[in-house]
Amino acid sequence: MSKYDKLTTNAVGRTVPQVVNGKDATPFLGVGKFRPTGRKFAPRISTLADYPEDGNKVVPGLKEALIRSGLSDGMVISTHHHFRNGDLVAIQIFDIAAELGIKGLTWVPSASFECHAPLIKYLEDGTIHHIEGSMNGALGRFTSEGGMQGLGILRSHGGRYQAIQDGDVQIDIAVIAAPTADPFGNATGDRGPAACGLLGFALADSQYADKVIVVTDNLVPFPCVPWQIHGNYVDFVVVLDKIGIPEKIISGTTEITKSPDRLLLAEMTAQFCDEAGIIRDGFSFQAGAGGTALSIGIYFAEMCRQRGMKARFARGGSNKYLVKMLEEGLVDYILDGQTFDLEGVRSMRENPGHLNTSPFTSYNYHGKGNFAQFVDVVILGATEVDVNFNANVVTHSDGYLLHGIGGWMNCLLSKCVILPVPLFRDRMPVILDDVTTICGPGELIDVIVTERGIAINPLRTDLIEKMKGSNLPIKTIQQLKAEAEKICGKPSKPRVTDEVVAVIKWVDGTVIDSVFRIDK
Amino acid sequence: MSKYDKLTTNAVGRTVPQVVNGKDATPFLGVGKFRPTGRKFAPRISTLADYPEDGNKVVPGLKEALIRSGLSDGMVISTHHHFRNGDLVAIQIFDIAAELGIKGLTWVPSASFECHAPLIKYLEDGTIHHIEGSMNGALGRFTSEGGMQGLGILRSHGGRYQAIQDGDVQIDIAVIAAPTADPFGNATGDRGPAACGLLGFALADSQYADKVIVVTDNLVPFPCVPWQIHGNYVDFVVVLDKIGIPEKIISGTTEITKSPDRLLLAEMTAQFCDEAGIIRDGFSFQAGAGGTALSIGIYFAEMCRQRGMKARFARGGSNKYLVKMLEEGLVDYILDGQTFDLEGVRSMRENPGHLNTSPFTSYNYHGKGNFAQFVDVVILGATEVDVNFNANVVTHSDGYLLHGIGGWMNCLLSKCVILPVPLFRDRMPVILDDVTTICGPGELIDVIVTERGIAINPLRTDLIEKMKGSNLPIKTIQQLKAEAEKICGKPSKPRVTDEVVAVIKWVDGTVIDSVFRIDK
Repeated sequence: MSKYDKLTTNAVGRTVPQVVNGKDATPFLGVGKFRPTGRKFAPRISTLADYPEDGNKVVPGLKEALIRSGLSDGMVISTHHHFRNGDLVAIQIFDIAAELGIKGLTWVPSASFECHAPLIKYLEDGTIHHIEGSMNGALGRFTSEGGMQGLGILRSHGGRYQAIQDGDVQIDIAVIAAPTADPFGNATGDRGPAACGLLGFALADSQYADKVIVVTDNLVPFPCVPWQIHGNYVDFVVVLDKIGIPEKIISGTTEITKSPDRLLLAEMTAQFCDEAGIIRDGFSFQAGAGGTALSIGIYFAEMCRQRGMKARFARGGSNKYLVKMLEEGLVDYILDGQTFDLEGVRSMRENPGHLNTSPFTSYNYHGKGNFAQFVDVVILGATEVDVNFNANVVTHSDGYLLHGIGGWMNCLLSKCVILPVPLFRDRMPVILDDVTTICGPGELIDVIVTERGIAINPLRTDLIEKMKGSNLPIKTIQQLKAEAEKICGKPSKPRVTDEVVAVIKWVDGTVIDSVFRIDK
Repeated sequence: MSKYDKLTTNAVGRTVPQVVNGKDATPFLGVGKFRPTGRKFAPRISTLADYPEDGNKVVPGLKEALIRSGLSDGMVISTHHHFRNGDLVAIQIFDIAAELGIKGLTWVPSASFECHAPLIKYLEDGTIHHIEGSMNGALGRFTSEGGMQGLGILRSHGGRYQAIQDGDVQIDIAVIAAPTADPFGNATGDRGPAACGLLGFALADSQYADKVIVVTDNLVPFPCVPWQIHGNYVDFVVVLDKIGIPEKIISGTTEITKSPDRLLLAEMTAQFCDEAGIIRDGFSFQAGAGGTALSIGIYFAEMCRQRGMKARFARGGSNKYLVKMLEEGLVDYILDGQTFDLEGVRSMRENPGHLNTSPFTSYNYHGKGNFAQFVDVVILGATEVDVNFNANVVTHSDGYLLHGIGGWMNCLLSKCVILPVPLFRDRMPVILDDVTTICGPGELIDVIVTERGIAINPLRTDLIEKMKGSNLPIKTIQQLKAEAEKICGKPSKPRVTDEVVAVIKWVDGTVIDSVFRIDK
């Protein structure tokens, strides 16, 4: 983005561009302040007359499917990330595009992983103009250093659904890698050699993309059951030898932490929830896939077991610990957005109480409500938190963009948001005067748990009241910051330029912050 | 409709209006000839900011929900028919509208039943302007006699989905009666005191209506599972004492026929399918809910049992006979659109192979394919058939509109369409020179089975070839007509005027025929 383009200051005081990749962008106006006035994106009307009479949509290869989908310069191509670091399909799409001499594509993955680093060459040679999704690891470094032609756009899982639904992103071709599919295009993630559990991140793509290609390595006769993706939205089916590397598909943190520091965080968080009255019969919770979060789940399970209580539901990322809770009767339902281990996949296939959800049901802010908003407590991570409780999940304190947002932003609408974070990492304080990038406005973040103390957001007078007399180390956020600085010293500011390389979209599609080019 | 409005002749030679209730209407152009060029209907974008933070959308009553939905003159109100003749909700909506003095509503039920006859008073007093859906029994008579202010519009189940999806019908308020629901609006039909199996006929309504009200007599804590209707589409939830009369909900024909004539038809049809090579391992079929159709299913089951074969899937309306096939392993899957008895409801709740489908998956012609098109054989009824194999399901030979279309039209796209019909009813021939109303073009109807002979459509040279040497009484349609006329005499034409009172929409939204006012 040229420095001459118009920048403005948004409701959280951040400098954001008013035009992003040639389209007007609304600056963040505050939580719940932006009111959409338009209508959802309207896909073209199809007719059976244009599809095979026998319902068989199989074509000989991905290249043919892409060509028949009209692949051409400037198109928007989407993929999903249920295979995580074991994805074998996204790279092939752009290899084909490059071979065909196509330029200026936009890639809209629901998330990117290290396995997508080879796409850097296509960002360099102009095959891909920019990425809307996430730019993790090597792709993030490349973006931070100004390598991408267009501006990167980072969205939460719910924000991605919102953007596709509202037409902010109009997908020309969606490629949906599916562990099992039938010739009509019905597809599921819960079975097959590359089983990944579910395909919810591809739901919006299937509903709204102009052309939809299902790619599978396990074609079964109609009907493929369950049809997590409806064949009625699908144009072509492609059979490949292998669409994912199973051992890398299941690549989340799958074991509880053994680190004493993290275990302490987990224990303090669980105790906080208990003392705050959150752990009660019929409660609900969501914890991520990290070791700390897993450990908190274990504490919750133990409390339920001891007291003869059960949770009504847990929101996943599922894993073997959640599945054990379900099968032990300590939770009625797992509402799952992605399975983090094979036990999660098995359980989703076998347990009627293990439910397949999507960013539409759970996270879309432009719906008539969503599931995240009535979760009692959600436990999330952060790279940085500031004294106003604003938090960052995408950049590090050196300014580098290294992570995606995932469902993190969407979970902030839950009833109680707790961030257990270490007070410092690699001698860099985690609690700062200002976060490098605001991903979550402080008003939505309720509690910061560190190994040296717990800070409650002053807005949550109810929680402050409840914790009076607790023997947990309740402190102010300023106290925590001071303690960190006493140990690590005052942190230096990241060395960034005033050139925007990526923007962070809030759950309503407005721009909450920018990522600036690193001054190497 | 005034006789001065423009009429035209469509591709099957029928006189149809070019304007229906003030909107342009495309005359039927031939099967697969109409190509839609537009985009799907785009509902308004919602935002969480306008919905309760805790996800609780319960309001004190249906009246309040309707008022808060903005009920006003000229609106389009939809309901579903999964409760069939036991529906207790539709009447209440219009009682409230009348009480509020609202006029000129359009009622868009997915089907109507005798229990809806009390709505005639609202058609008379102008509360309801016209019906788009079906006009059965008393409502049909009323329409036929010119009582309705506007033109009735009859659509198939798939045509209804198409019309809502494409914006041909724009629903202002959808009222979805649900046997079980949670306060967020997630709803299911497979459990609760008024269990009706599924809610697929309300799917389009939930997705596209401006306001959606879920009405239930069984409110459960979130999450209501399975969420056949997504709460994310729902605006208000209303709890009533009773939403349906269970014994009338399950009101399809649930026993195989004992009539010797019908049993003969069933046996001939089954034998025809067998000789034509349709009954083979992995085949698929759909039969309706009538006694003859049920009996044909029994024959199919027996063939599978004896030969150690199984069907891949059966399309429902499900009933205890289909469920028995499923549980005996004679069919892999039931793809069910509506449950016709309590065994169907139980099976849908309990059997993973008993699958919930919708007019979107099964019948929508404006999709990228649908399930109906790859069913091997479908067995349907008809009120009349003509020598060109055109068939009628909505009017009788006296001209009266008495039935809806259901999924009948949509099933015509299956690979083999067989109509077992008696040669005459009440001494009126069923096979005529011209049907009173064309609901299905002859080119899609393959075989007519009567107790005195079987006629194969000359277009199906393959079937004619296969049946050479059969000991079944294969005849021409003209022969069958002549036999009927020999017994009953030449039938008289219905006494109708040239005034159109209703139109029949083909699966692509074009007008295939008109219903004319009866000259009493």
